[in-house]
Amino acid sequence: MSVPTQTVDKRVERSKAKVLAETYRQLVQSGIAGVSVDEVSRISGISKTTIYRHWPSRSALLIDACSRLGGTPVAPDTGSLRGDARALLSHLAHQLQTANWGSVYPSIIDAAERDGELSTMQAALHKTFMAPFEAIIERAKAKGEIPPGRLTNDVVALLVGPFFFRRWFAKEGMDDRFIDAVIEAAIR
Amino acid sequence: MSVPTQTVDKRVERSKAKVLAETYRQLVQSGIAGVSVDEVSRISGISKTTIYRHWPSRSALLIDACSRLGGTPVAPDTGSLRGDARALLSHLAHQLQTANWGSVYPSIIDAAERDGELSTMQAALHKTFMAPFEAIIERAKAKGEIPPGRLTNDVVALLVGPFFFRRWFAKEGMDDRFIDAVIEAAIR
Repeated sequence: MSVPTQTVDKRVERSKAKVLAETYRQLVQSGIAGVSVDEVSRISGISKTTIYRHWPSRSALLIDACSRLGGTPVAPDTGSLRGDARALLSHLAHQLQTANWGSVYPSIIDAAERDGELSTMQAALHKTFMAPFEAIIERAKAKGEIPPGRLTNDVVALLVGPFFFRRWFAKEGMDDRFIDAVIEAAIR
Repeated sequence: MSVPTQTVDKRVERSKAKVLAETYRQLVQSGIAGVSVDEVSRISGISKTTIYRHWPSRSALLIDACSRLGGTPVAPDTGSLRGDARALLSHLAHQLQTANWGSVYPSIIDAAERDGELSTMQAALHKTFMAPFEAIIERAKAKGEIPPGRLTNDVVALLVGPFFFRRWFAKEGMDDRFIDAVIEAAIR
């Protein structure tokens, strides 16, 4: 009995979605170290053989699940660098204080210190997260809002560094007053 | 046969030192998740019973070993906030790029997201690391070098955040030019 290709494809997609959803759930609950392929298989009901057919390694599965974190940020265009930075940093502060990736990202940062594949993935995630910041700074340079000689990655570190610092190291809040203080320091 | 108390004390100290040294070695090699009391016992030659007599839990042992990280920083007194900040940040940049704790600290940050005891320890470590920064900022306020109304923890986040950002997230270098750029932004 042959099964139509489309049906097989849908079945495969459903299996993959189940595996990714369960991996993501474990990731959010316990960080990278807490993700077990055995457990993913047991809870999703998808065999390990099938899992390893789609993802050649645990790292590959983790990378796929991690890429769902944080969504795809877009560069705002409010008409000024201050306005753009305020929009991005308000969103970042909110995400850091409420979203799942706030507690998952440190496990990726930690794993990236020792695992080459996860280090490559972290670099890609970081690039995606920072892209809108780079875009608004480049635009401000082009418009003459800040000196063209200022290094974009300096400004990114000055804008974003204090927020990461507060969320993961100092464990302090990030209100509108703090957002404005950081913007003043970084782009005055 | 009775053994003089002093001899017993020395023996205990030697055993504890062996356990701490091996815990520290595993910590530096594999991060917090890689420390196993079984392995510490096997390699140090100190029984698990003895280990648990001195440290009631794995967390207690980890906390003791982690407290050796980074040393005790001292607030410099160069005569100006800029000079003091440059001294502290040069040291920090060097440590971040060369010392063991650069690769260990993310595992503490990660564990602190889920483990209450380690979260308390991370808060204490952070306080120790930041104390000299707070000291130079408070002194500068007292001398009128910066407005007394500026929040000390804002300035700490602006000074230190960009360095943590580069070491653990952007994976970028921190040279003298970057140090001066951060100081200019934070305390201008």
